[in-house]
Amino acid sequence: MALNPQYEDIGKGFVQQYYAMFDDPNQRNALVNFYNADQSFMTFEGQQIQGAPKILEKLQSLTFQKISRIITAVDSQPTFDGGVLVSVLGRLQCDDDPPHAYSQTFVLKPLGGSFFCAHDIFRLNIHDTA
Amino acid sequence: MALNPQYEDIGKGFVQQYYAMFDDPNQRNALVNFYNADQSFMTFEGQQIQGAPKILEKLQSLTFQKISRIITAVDSQPTFDGGVLVSVLGRLQCDDDPPHAYSQTFVLKPLGGSFFCAHDIFRLNIHDTA
Repeated sequence: MALNPQYEDIGKGFVQQYYAMFDDPNQRNALVNFYNADQSFMTFEGQQIQGAPKILEKLQSLTFQKISRIITAVDSQPTFDGGVLVSVLGRLQCDDDPPHAYSQTFVLKPLGGSFFCAHDIFRLNIHDTA
Repeated sequence: MALNPQYEDIGKGFVQQYYAMFDDPNQRNALVNFYNADQSFMTFEGQQIQGAPKILEKLQSLTFQKISRIITAVDSQPTFDGGVLVSVLGRLQCDDDPPHAYSQTFVLKPLGGSFFCAHDIFRLNIHDTA
């Protein structure tokens, strides 16, 4: 496969769709559909998880109801297998926690005309105040 | 190729080597050797660059002499082509600029027993104070 010239739109569209679902406690568990049964990796605050069933367990463990999120940067690059690498910087506040900067990296891989999320790395940047 | 079980060590070793060179103005330009002549992508503060010659121009344009860097997290994942995805969070201060949180994502791809850097996305998080 070749580089997908639509990588910017794909990256931004995915991020918008992903967070709309993540930030809604009624839709959050449906994010599991973005992940492959065994070929997707998630690293959540340093915890390494592989495969959709365990990723669903992680999603189900996230019980916050109200998320305020500001996205400050979305950088995308095309990959030579037709996928997209996406790096997101933002700030988020969950329920009554203090707001934190965070970083999230996704790798989207092409699958049957659409994409699945092959890699997902999330970190709060709790050292974000000087 | 298969997953490389050494992905953690490869990611951490690369980050250590990369920043030791980046933070030394006498070695910074030699970083170009990590990148492929035309198959490497760099996104530097939103500026998109492809291929080692243009990446070298970017490196040469970075004239700061003194960098103070603190790495707060290095998360790595293996990719199914034998490579490694690496996400770094840290803080850095260049010369007399104020310190900022930053995020950098690398994708390392196997090449002849070693690796080259196929993807590199760097962003300062200037909105890092609440």
